[in-house]
Amino acid sequence: MSTPIITLTTDFGMRDPWVGIMKGVILGICPAARLVDLAHDIGAQDVLEGALCLEAAASFFPTGTIHLAVVDPGVGSSRRPMALRSAGQCFVGPDNGLFSLVLERAGGRVEAVELTAAEYRLARISRTFHGRDIFAPAAAHLASGVPLERLGRAITDPVRLILHSSRREEGLVAGEVIGADRFGNLFTSVTEEDLAGLDGPLDLVVEIGGIRVGAPVAAYSDVRPGAVGAVVGSTGRLEVFVRDGSAQAALGRGRGAPVVVRRA
Amino acid sequence: MSTPIITLTTDFGMRDPWVGIMKGVILGICPAARLVDLAHDIGAQDVLEGALCLEAAASFFPTGTIHLAVVDPGVGSSRRPMALRSAGQCFVGPDNGLFSLVLERAGGRVEAVELTAAEYRLARISRTFHGRDIFAPAAAHLASGVPLERLGRAITDPVRLILHSSRREEGLVAGEVIGADRFGNLFTSVTEEDLAGLDGPLDLVVEIGGIRVGAPVAAYSDVRPGAVGAVVGSTGRLEVFVRDGSAQAALGRGRGAPVVVRRA
Amino acid sequence: MSTPIITLTTDFGMRDPWVGIMKGVILGICPAARLVDLAHDIGAQDVLEGALCLEAAASFFPTGTIHLAVVDPGVGSSRRPMALRSAGQCFVGPDNGLFSLVLERAGGRVEAVELTAAEYRLARISRTFHGRDIFAPAAAHLASGVPLERLGRAITDPVRLILHSSRREEGLVAGEVIGADRFGNLFTSVTEEDLAGLDGPLDLVVEIGGIRVGAPVAAYSDVRPGAVGAVVGSTGRLEVFVRDGSAQAALGRGRGAPVVVRRA
Repeated sequence: MSTPIITLTTDFGMRDPWVGIMKGVILGICPAARLVDLAHDIGAQDVLEGALCLEAAASFFPTGTIHLAVVDPGVGSSRRPMALRSAGQCFVGPDNGLFSLVLERAGGRVEAVELTAAEYRLARISRTFHGRDIFAPAAAHLASGVPLERLGRAITDPVRLILHSSRREEGLVAGEVIGADRFGNLFTSVTEEDLAGLDGPLDLVVEIGGIRVGAPVAAYSDVRPGAVGAVVGSTGRLEVFVRDGSAQAALGRGRGAPVVVRRA
Repeated sequence: MSTPIITLTTDFGMRDPWVGIMKGVILGICPAARLVDLAHDIGAQDVLEGALCLEAAASFFPTGTIHLAVVDPGVGSSRRPMALRSAGQCFVGPDNGLFSLVLERAGGRVEAVELTAAEYRLARISRTFHGRDIFAPAAAHLASGVPLERLGRAITDPVRLILHSSRREEGLVAGEVIGADRFGNLFTSVTEEDLAGLDGPLDLVVEIGGIRVGAPVAAYSDVRPGAVGAVVGSTGRLEVFVRDGSAQAALGRGRGAPVVVRRA
Repeated sequence: MSTPIITLTTDFGMRDPWVGIMKGVILGICPAARLVDLAHDIGAQDVLEGALCLEAAASFFPTGTIHLAVVDPGVGSSRRPMALRSAGQCFVGPDNGLFSLVLERAGGRVEAVELTAAEYRLARISRTFHGRDIFAPAAAHLASGVPLERLGRAITDPVRLILHSSRREEGLVAGEVIGADRFGNLFTSVTEEDLAGLDGPLDLVVEIGGIRVGAPVAAYSDVRPGAVGAVVGSTGRLEVFVRDGSAQAALGRGRGAPVVVRRA
């Protein structure tokens, strides 16, 4: 068996030692684990941004990878700590919607457990840092070969965010902006599959928050520097961008702004 | 012997290659070392913040771990480069107070050396980047099995910051804010042990910079969203927080603000 | 053969999963690769800053290291994807000048190829994320032992940025500011070698954007706290700094500001 990979996704930033502490706990339990940071500057307590991060990244990791994710505004409350298996990978974190998009893609074919087994947690559980006390140990024990089922009792109703997904209507697709990246590119709920039901790209027009963007192009460099464009990006979602600039800043649009793609 | 872990704590950020350069030097000397970032966005030259980071994290790493820390405003001056061993772990960095809290916890039971041995430094020593030239090589040689004593002459008086620690008086504990994390949680010099000498939590009241916060609760979720609370956090220190918000911003208090816990 | 090291340098930041995705792709192809982050907060699309980062860091890594760098404003356009070998290390990324300083140091003694071989790319190539689809796979295949030459056809004219390097004139060296680090230290195009042709340091004076800084000192601590100084820094370049402060902020000078070093 090759060395297990554990990825880490949090809203902890790198100014504080919280991420490093989780890594110390993991390596104390599973010294052979390979640790890969996915993102730690997720917006504070922004569960949707965390869910989008996992959706974008998980499928590029090998089978057997364990994804540890902690964006956890409800730590210490009754929200359940969870581990689930889907498509040959495991996911560990709070049951607060963080794994909504994983669940959506899996179409219900997941096995999930609540992390109740005391022998796979730290001896003392704080009520403020389950990343360290519950989630990191669970991920490390999975990486060491402990079967998912031993970590706790089955969960059949994991929490899902109500995502404002796209709707296809007569000759158009309607969705909304769901996030932005560091470059100011705006990600939308409209996917490549949604667009496939419409006409070819040259006959389409994209509108975002009432601003007409034009037809989707194939690459950022297909519009002039400073111009606005739309593109099906690397994650399979329609993005709105400004070449060599920030669409978020230039258009003054952000999460929740309506997006429509229609025939020109 | 399992693969040695070296953690890295700096104020170098991730915009510049300084951290990566130290890792290159380490792997050139000890290719088997496992590198774990603790924090690199420590406030520029903020030795106390670095000391708090090490205090919070070190005990969660396995015996044998080497903690390399570089927050070094005096680089190139006469401050001594140092390595020390405490409780089965090693610490490497400038002797400027960065290891004060490690020393405090150890109660003097440490062995420390000044990094004077030329064979365990790079061949050419700059006066501006000892992290690369002195500290990274020392950590790597320790990870390769070189005994601490071979790195240089003994130090018996490592520098300690004068920490404004908490005072217990009749019926109260007085301390101060010593730092804040990315969420705006305010960390104080008041510890769990300090509070143990007072009445039970329900009879206590916390004041920070003259603002009354109420009794310590057990979890962030025990107060209403937007409300201020106090909690003994995951590091064993009393924290003041705003649920789903920033106490630092909401209260306008930061490092040095007085904190008092008294019977209600 | 020891485990191959792959370093990563990007302008992707750590808020988004792009860096983590590249690591997943690499580990899927070469599970034994050791991954080291050099810098991910390079200014968005700032190719020169990326080039300086690689120049500062590469030589501190062992022979055989592979440096993967993605600062890629032209992704999806006709700019070529490239891998090159120089001084026993490999470099992988866009052919847009990012490797200018590596090329300059090598004095033309490099072997370079365009990454055209389909079997060493992902099956599906997006036009927006070649870091994932082309560069990460190329680096991973190199780490797995695939010879550089198999990755594509030879390139003999890799792109070089026109760097405003320093000029030596009668009794002076003229250059400019080429970047700044997180501390506000200003890096210049003037190198240690440039200064060697002038008189000893005590007889020199540095001017930056018309502001007289004084003679180069040997360490930051050689000037008073708050004072401005010049020093040949750890990368061999002349830097202008403010002790315990930011020269960038204090002097109001940045990239492109003229720098002159002359006899006093």
